[in-house]
Amino acid sequence: MEDAIPEHLKTVRTRPARVREDYEPPYPSFVARYDSSVRKVVMAYFGIQARPENEGHTVGPLAQLSAAFDAPDGPGHWDRARYVDGAGFVTLVSIAYWDDPASFDRWFSRNGSGWTGEEKAAPVGTFTEILRPAVERYETLFSATGRPEGIAALAGGFSDMVREHAYWGGMRDRIPLSQTDAMAPSGSPAVSESGGLRRVVPHHNLCLIRSGQDWTDADDEERQMYFEDVEPALRSGMDFLAREGMSCGCFDNRYMMVVGKDGSPTGKSFAMSWWKSLDALERWSESHPTHVAIFGAAMRYLTTIGPAAKLRLYHEVTVAAEDEQFFEYRNCHPDTGMLRSSGR
Amino acid sequence: MEDAIPEHLKTVRTRPARVREDYEPPYPSFVARYDSSVRKVVMAYFGIQARPENEGHTVGPLAQLSAAFDAPDGPGHWDRARYVDGAGFVTLVSIAYWDDPASFDRWFSRNGSGWTGEEKAAPVGTFTEILRPAVERYETLFSATGRPEGIAALAGGFSDMVREHAYWGGMRDRIPLSQTDAMAPSGSPAVSESGGLRRVVPHHNLCLIRSGQDWTDADDEERQMYFEDVEPALRSGMDFLAREGMSCGCFDNRYMMVVGKDGSPTGKSFAMSWWKSLDALERWSESHPTHVAIFGAAMRYLTTIGPAAKLRLYHEVTVAAEDEQFFEYRNCHPDTGMLRSSGR
Repeated sequence: MEDAIPEHLKTVRTRPARVREDYEPPYPSFVARYDSSVRKVVMAYFGIQARPENEGHTVGPLAQLSAAFDAPDGPGHWDRARYVDGAGFVTLVSIAYWDDPASFDRWFSRNGSGWTGEEKAAPVGTFTEILRPAVERYETLFSATGRPEGIAALAGGFSDMVREHAYWGGMRDRIPLSQTDAMAPSGSPAVSESGGLRRVVPHHNLCLIRSGQDWTDADDEERQMYFEDVEPALRSGMDFLAREGMSCGCFDNRYMMVVGKDGSPTGKSFAMSWWKSLDALERWSESHPTHVAIFGAAMRYLTTIGPAAKLRLYHEVTVAAEDEQFFEYRNCHPDTGMLRSSGR
Repeated sequence: MEDAIPEHLKTVRTRPARVREDYEPPYPSFVARYDSSVRKVVMAYFGIQARPENEGHTVGPLAQLSAAFDAPDGPGHWDRARYVDGAGFVTLVSIAYWDDPASFDRWFSRNGSGWTGEEKAAPVGTFTEILRPAVERYETLFSATGRPEGIAALAGGFSDMVREHAYWGGMRDRIPLSQTDAMAPSGSPAVSESGGLRRVVPHHNLCLIRSGQDWTDADDEERQMYFEDVEPALRSGMDFLAREGMSCGCFDNRYMMVVGKDGSPTGKSFAMSWWKSLDALERWSESHPTHVAIFGAAMRYLTTIGPAAKLRLYHEVTVAAEDEQFFEYRNCHPDTGMLRSSGR
C-alpha cells in the first residue's frame, strides 16, 4: 500500500488527511506516477461546435488540428470526444497533454494559437481551454493499471495500490497542495470580448474534473448491466450538471463519447466539468441526489460483478491557480463552456 | 446560520473543519444547545434480555427500574425501546440521561448498580452500558426543532440552523474535540469475568451512535412511503451491522422500536451501535453498500416529499475516553452488546 502523494511532493502537513495511516480501502485503486523532474503539465482542450447540419464543416479543421498535434513539440498524448450540447450544437473536443510547458509554448505559438485566434472559413465556433497546473495541483485515480488515460498517459507508470481513495475527501487528500492549503476559490470569472473573441478572466482555484469510463473489455452481460443500470443514472446526473449545474457551482459539464482519430466511436466515454472550486465538486459528489444515484448504481454494479468487473474507471482532478488558466471562445454560442460563468 | 460548536467550546483549530465558512448546507438542521455550566453528561443504557417465552419475567424488573428513575437524583430524561436480537432474545433497553455526573453517581449507587450487580430472581439477563462523556466528546443533530430526543432532552434548547451538516465529515466537525484531536482509537476492548458478572475493559475513543426516526406526525401517505421505500433499506443495513458489523468495526447494533412507559408501541424507532472508532462509523456511513442504500432511499424520500416531510430524524454521536465507559453484563448470552468485542 502506497501513499497517493509521491515522496518528492510530500511536505509537513498543516491540514491532516481525512483518514489515518491505518486506513485500508475496501478495493484497490491506483494513481499515475510521474518522473520527479516534471513540475508542471499542460491540459489543452480544443473545441469546435456546429449546428448539426453543419457538422461536416468540422472535418477540415479537425484534420488540420490532428496534423498539428504531430508537429514538433506536439503533445505527448491526445484524444478526441464528441457530444451534442444543451443548445443542440454538435461539439468535438480534442484534448492534448504536455509535461513540458516550454515545449507546449513553442508548439502553441506555431500550431495552436490559431484555433481560436483566427476566424475559421466555415460556420463553426471554436474554443481553447487550457490549464497548466503545477504537479502539486492535480491528482489522478484509476480502477486498474495498464491503460492510462488523459494526463496519466504522460506518466512513467502507475503506483501500487494507494491508501487515499474509496472515502469522501480522498480526491482532496490525493492533491499534494491539500497538505497545506484549503484551495479556497477567490474572485469570480469574468468574460471580456474583443473583436469577436471572448476570453474568460479566470478566478483563483478553479477546478476541472475529467472522469471516464471504458467498457472496451466488458463482455455482453457486463456491458448490458452497465448500460441498463449505471449509464442512465450517469447520464441523468450529467444532464443535470449541464442544465442546472450553476446551482451547485458547476459552470459547465460535457458528457462525451470518445471517438477514434478517424471519428469512429469507441467503447469509452468521459465527462469533463468546470467548477467554482474543489469544495463545490466535493459537495455535489457527496450529497446531491443526482450523484448519490450514480454512486448507488455504480456500487450495486461493482458489488454484483465483483473483482471480475472489466469496466475501467478513471479520473483526473485539477485545482488551477489564476495564472494557470486560459480560455478563448470564437463564434461560440453564449452557453459554451466557461462563457456560462459570467452568470448572464 | 450558526456554527455547530458553541462559543464556549471553541478552541484554536489545529485540524480544519471539512467545509469553509462560506459553506451553505442545502437544507436546515439543528443541534442541541446546553448551558455552558454542563461539562459532562451521562448516557446510561440498562438492558434486559429474555427468551421470548420468558418476556413476562422482564415486567417486574422494568417496573422497578421505572420507579427507580423517579427516585431523587434520577435522570433528567429517559426512554425505553424493544427489539429481538440476533440470537432471538427479546431485549428491552431503558436509556437514561443526566447532565450532572455527581447526581448520577448518587443515584446509581443507591438505585442503579443493582441492575447488573445483583442476580435477578427471574430467568433474564441484564446489562448496564454507561458513557459519561465530556461535552467536547459528543454532538447531536436534528432535522427539526421542538421535540428533543436522547441527550438533547437535557439541553436548554436548540440552535438556529447550523452550518456543519449535510456533508460527509459533518459529524466529526460538530464534535468539539475534533478541533484539535483525530480521536483515533487505541487499544482493544477486553472482557473480564468474575462471579457470573462480565465486564468490558474498554479502549480509548470508543464510539456510540444513537440515530432515530419519528413518524408520529406523518400522514398516511408519507408513512406508507417511509415504510415501503426507506424502512426496508434501513432494516437491511441495521441487520447487516448486527450480523456482520465486526467486519467494519461495529461491535454491535440494536435497531429498536421505542415503547411507551407502559410498554405500548410508539411512532418512533432508533438504532444504537457501538463502534471501534468514529473513523469506522464514518467509513461505513460513507461507502458501505448497505448505508449507501439507506442514504439513497432517504434522499429519494426527502426529495419527493420536500420541506413538507413530517418525518423527524435525529442522532447523537459520542467518542468516549477510556475512563468514560462502563460495561457490565449478567446472565447475558455471549453475543450481547460489547461482549462481542472480545472477538470470540
